[in-house]
Amino acid sequence: IELLDNEFIKQSLEGVNVADIAAILDELNMDEAIYVLRLLDHSFAADILIELDEDSLVKVIREMDPIELAALIDEMESDDAADILILMPTKEREDVISNLQVKEKSANILDLLRYDEYSAGGLMAKEFIKANKNWNVIQTIEEIRRQAENVEKIYSIYVVDNRQHLLGRVSLKKIILASSDTKISDIYEPELISVPTHMEGEEVAEIMRKYDLESLPVVNAKNRLVGRITVDDILDLIREQSEEDIQAMTGISADIEESDSVFRISKARLPWLLIGVIGGLMGAKIIGLFEDGLSKYIALASFIPLVAATGGNVGIQSSSLVVQTLASKSVFNDTPWQRFIKGLMIALVNGLVLGAFVFSVVVFIYGFESIFGLTIGLAMFCVVLLASFMGTVTPLVLDKFGINPAIASGPFITTANDLLGLAVYFGVAMALLKL
Amino acid sequence: IELLDNEFIKQSLEGVNVADIAAILDELNMDEAIYVLRLLDHSFAADILIELDEDSLVKVIREMDPIELAALIDEMESDDAADILILMPTKEREDVISNLQVKEKSANILDLLRYDEYSAGGLMAKEFIKANKNWNVIQTIEEIRRQAENVEKIYSIYVVDNRQHLLGRVSLKKIILASSDTKISDIYEPELISVPTHMEGEEVAEIMRKYDLESLPVVNAKNRLVGRITVDDILDLIREQSEEDIQAMTGISADIEESDSVFRISKARLPWLLIGVIGGLMGAKIIGLFEDGLSKYIALASFIPLVAATGGNVGIQSSSLVVQTLASKSVFNDTPWQRFIKGLMIALVNGLVLGAFVFSVVVFIYGFESIFGLTIGLAMFCVVLLASFMGTVTPLVLDKFGINPAIASGPFITTANDLLGLAVYFGVAMALLKL
Repeated sequence: IELLDNEFIKQSLEGVNVADIAAILDELNMDEAIYVLRLLDHSFAADILIELDEDSLVKVIREMDPIELAALIDEMESDDAADILILMPTKEREDVISNLQVKEKSANILDLLRYDEYSAGGLMAKEFIKANKNWNVIQTIEEIRRQAENVEKIYSIYVVDNRQHLLGRVSLKKIILASSDTKISDIYEPELISVPTHMEGEEVAEIMRKYDLESLPVVNAKNRLVGRITVDDILDLIREQSEEDIQAMTGISADIEESDSVFRISKARLPWLLIGVIGGLMGAKIIGLFEDGLSKYIALASFIPLVAATGGNVGIQSSSLVVQTLASKSVFNDTPWQRFIKGLMIALVNGLVLGAFVFSVVVFIYGFESIFGLTIGLAMFCVVLLASFMGTVTPLVLDKFGINPAIASGPFITTANDLLGLAVYFGVAMALLKL
Repeated sequence: IELLDNEFIKQSLEGVNVADIAAILDELNMDEAIYVLRLLDHSFAADILIELDEDSLVKVIREMDPIELAALIDEMESDDAADILILMPTKEREDVISNLQVKEKSANILDLLRYDEYSAGGLMAKEFIKANKNWNVIQTIEEIRRQAENVEKIYSIYVVDNRQHLLGRVSLKKIILASSDTKISDIYEPELISVPTHMEGEEVAEIMRKYDLESLPVVNAKNRLVGRITVDDILDLIREQSEEDIQAMTGISADIEESDSVFRISKARLPWLLIGVIGGLMGAKIIGLFEDGLSKYIALASFIPLVAATGGNVGIQSSSLVVQTLASKSVFNDTPWQRFIKGLMIALVNGLVLGAFVFSVVVFIYGFESIFGLTIGLAMFCVVLLASFMGTVTPLVLDKFGINPAIASGPFITTANDLLGLAVYFGVAMALLKL
């Protein structure tokens, strides 16, 4: 589309928002995207690079040589730079870092790369404005001027003592409204929420949401201020994580989008579907064991889907409520024991209602004998209890082992619940119908 | 716990973050919470009130008299005030508004109450700082000083012309760094993203995320600046909506939390479970129709859960991908026709793989005749195709009718897919096995 007129491309992109340009480049092929990036000046191209899709980004940085990439990274804030470098193999990454012009930046980036990508340390940027509590407003404005180019958005100025311990914050509003010889120590707010570098991203997001913060200081183990997290990074994180949760729940293994290729989407979906299928095949074996009983009471087969589906639905409901509670890290949790009792009560209520309903329909509407109705109703009751229990316990166990508890609502657990449900169903049937 | 020492309560709450206090009050009973709120001064109590859980909030405002509540609402920003007033019956709401001291505020609130709660108009606050393009920096700082008490967080100053049309924004950083006689028209950034009052909250959130904004101006149909949305409100909205989506997917009808009562949680879950059960009972009827065939080929019963579960899993995967695409409002959608073809291709690939796998296991491992294996494999293939189709089309149709497409992944559709799967299964079996 655009092999010819460089000037035209440059002019038409001027003044367009970088996120929009990035969205266009995502759709172009890689050569075209790199061609456009090379046309633009470094600072503009760097801003666009940050906004690219991860897939396109990996392709683009693979094609660029280290010196070229270093020139772009020199224009970025340290957290964005680290997010890009983490996508490269170690060897190339070091090449790029050694080509950076600003030595302070390469130190900052190396520092950030040490942290887990989804911890507070991995989310933070090293660029922020801090003021010593002994400074006055004029000195602070000088510092803002000095850092103006590095720090794109200021939000708050963090106040530290001589040993870099975080004391509090002062808003730009206060700086503007104060007279120029006011001391920072007289106007700063000492009450300040900060997070340690090792805190998980999800928890950081919840803190920012709860306390309505747009930036959050990060401190190291010695309570020294080492960085700040801004709300735009958190918005990206929240979106990524809610997509991950939903994909985990629906058993899609990789991070895919509707625009990916047919083969890639199939590949991401098949593993979980196969687990479901293998579960189903095992279920067939279980039912096969009761074939004699089934041939005597052929109607038992009719209610297999009912029992299996109810077990699955109940399990998903229980687990999703637990996952939600885990995700929001509520402060006032009941003890595990109280939660267990409560889950049991809910399951008892639901199990009784559903069991009685099914019994009534089977006996009074479908006209089966009451012993048969009792079998189906009792099986329902047991399955609801069991599925609730599994649905409550599984995410808690997964969370304990550091696995995303959302997969508890996925096909794996649903399949396990189905199998358990079948076993319970035929167990009850054998006992009551004396098969 | 705290019937006695008022001074002690006041002192111990001083300096504690309002969100934390709100979390404590959520756990107290209503009388105690109101008692504490009355102890504190209006501005502090107002901040706490905003942070309360919706359940507690409704109880508290029901107990307070209009004059008392008006005193608190006088201390709030207009968007928070509107969020609280919208929870009250119309009659009481008017009582409170007529008791407000600040006339400008009651006009603002009445204005906000006109908008849908989840539209840009409903999310915005009327408090923000705007500067005329002809002002200089000194005049702008004067305006900031004048509004300092009303506007808690400034972020950006919006620049308007004499007719209140939005022209651009200028950051506080620029104001601080500019000399005092600089004209605003010389330093403002004309490139500015704004949204109309009627835009949906979800779309607003996506724009703020995409462009890394922390505040977003809202304009009316005449492009006049009427309010601004801040990122803290968006964080709350995103969390609410992702919880809603997950609850819709898992078939929990009301907004419940793990801390709600047993009865309330049961009530929220039962309707969807009942739908699943009714579906299962209908499934039993369908299977009953094939009872003669079943009694000849009793092994057919064994594979019922396999077919039903696969249909459910495939349907959930397809629908969740569509829901995700709908939610992120991707810019470069394929045409509906291309998407349909692509979905079909994915289903073909998955169906072939799963069908062949099931055929192999049934024939070579379980040792059934190959015609029986073919029946099960072909049924699998058909069910995968059908479930993909349903899973793709249903959320699109729901979205067209303005229903949250996430419920497409819920029990209702899963149940429908199960039933269709059963019908297809026995249809294939009848044809191939000549039952």
